[in-house]
Amino acid sequence: MTGRGQARAVVLLSGGLDSATTLAVARDQGYACHALSLDYGQRHRAELAAARRVAAALGVREHKVIPLDLTCIGGSALTDPGIPVPDAPSEGIPVTYVPARNTVFLALALGWAETLGAHDIFIGVNAVDYSGYPDCRPEYIAAFERLSNLATRAGVEGERFHVRAPLIDLTKADIIRLGQRLGLDYGLTVSCYAADEAGRACGRCDACRIRAAGFAAAGVADPTRYRAGVARQND
Amino acid sequence: MTGRGQARAVVLLSGGLDSATTLAVARDQGYACHALSLDYGQRHRAELAAARRVAAALGVREHKVIPLDLTCIGGSALTDPGIPVPDAPSEGIPVTYVPARNTVFLALALGWAETLGAHDIFIGVNAVDYSGYPDCRPEYIAAFERLSNLATRAGVEGERFHVRAPLIDLTKADIIRLGQRLGLDYGLTVSCYAADEAGRACGRCDACRIRAAGFAAAGVADPTRYRAGVARQND
Repeated sequence: MTGRGQARAVVLLSGGLDSATTLAVARDQGYACHALSLDYGQRHRAELAAARRVAAALGVREHKVIPLDLTCIGGSALTDPGIPVPDAPSEGIPVTYVPARNTVFLALALGWAETLGAHDIFIGVNAVDYSGYPDCRPEYIAAFERLSNLATRAGVEGERFHVRAPLIDLTKADIIRLGQRLGLDYGLTVSCYAADEAGRACGRCDACRIRAAGFAAAGVADPTRYRAGVARQND
Repeated sequence: MTGRGQARAVVLLSGGLDSATTLAVARDQGYACHALSLDYGQRHRAELAAARRVAAALGVREHKVIPLDLTCIGGSALTDPGIPVPDAPSEGIPVTYVPARNTVFLALALGWAETLGAHDIFIGVNAVDYSGYPDCRPEYIAAFERLSNLATRAGVEGERFHVRAPLIDLTKADIIRLGQRLGLDYGLTVSCYAADEAGRACGRCDACRIRAAGFAAAGVADPTRYRAGVARQND
């Protein structure tokens, strides 16, 4: 049920654990949610299928999947077939960093928000148990919010955009507990950078390691489906 | 001729008068230019053909045209077939404003710049003889530059991105004189929001009016090709 006066929000939805939790938070806060996913040529195609499942399960008002081929820019293991996804932790910003990805995503969310008359954009970035990407930090989010109010008709006319990052200060275990409290089924989500077409996880990439450690630390049963032959991460 | 040590720049190239002049400026400053155009579903398809002509004429090192369908976001006369392009001036920000367009363009330019190892992004925005778009103002450009250095690996590692807007304080007449001095053939460019497939201008939209007034004020012969039956603007 969506009331006529209900505020709208655009929610960036990748299909992973964090963005699904963010959507659950936005819904819990009473927003009519418009979910935005990008088909950017990511290796982990199962993510998009997960995004569709999560959007349907959480009853979004609309789910838009925009095709935008970032493989032509390359520069990341997620978008360049010539760069392998690492199966061990690395120092510094890892090769799975996609140049300017969150800036591109937020820019499109901003454009859609302006068209919808929405003033809130939700993004599931997290600066605690994360991969070290620069565009997941609080100072980055604050800078984008400031930009939003200079970039748009609504900003010029005195309205305010807010970029909401409700997970930014939470540990992965806290995020999982929050989602569980909101009734989210994490079995719908896919985090793995190298998931197969059925959405089964590799159990070895950064995203798998961080996710498995989160379920273990939260004391929550991990619904992640792994490929045959992969030992469960938190047994 | 491009030396091995020549600095690279990404130049946003729409195919209009301003972006073509900006490319000529970047080349004149000694950059190896990587031109970026977006096929965003714009009505004025002739713009993209113009971008290709200009890129070839100015000898860019590479010209990338990224397809990104902004018609699914809508909200503008340039991307929504249901909103007509006005043929008379309007008050405030006009309906040809495309929500968050420059933010999307700059975000993609930033991603490509990071992959190329370029630290300079050129954009042909202008805040004098312009249509009143919020994302053409100096404070917007400064906010995006600041964001760039928070968003990226290069920024975190201590390098600096610069967003160069060399036309921002110029009148249209000054821009035209500058391009002429740099040898640019404005007959290659298309500014009209409602150009036909051959690139012939309507002579009535905002972009046509501003362009024609610029040639008149500069005292330069206007090479713009108008559709049959359209009176030349600066005769």
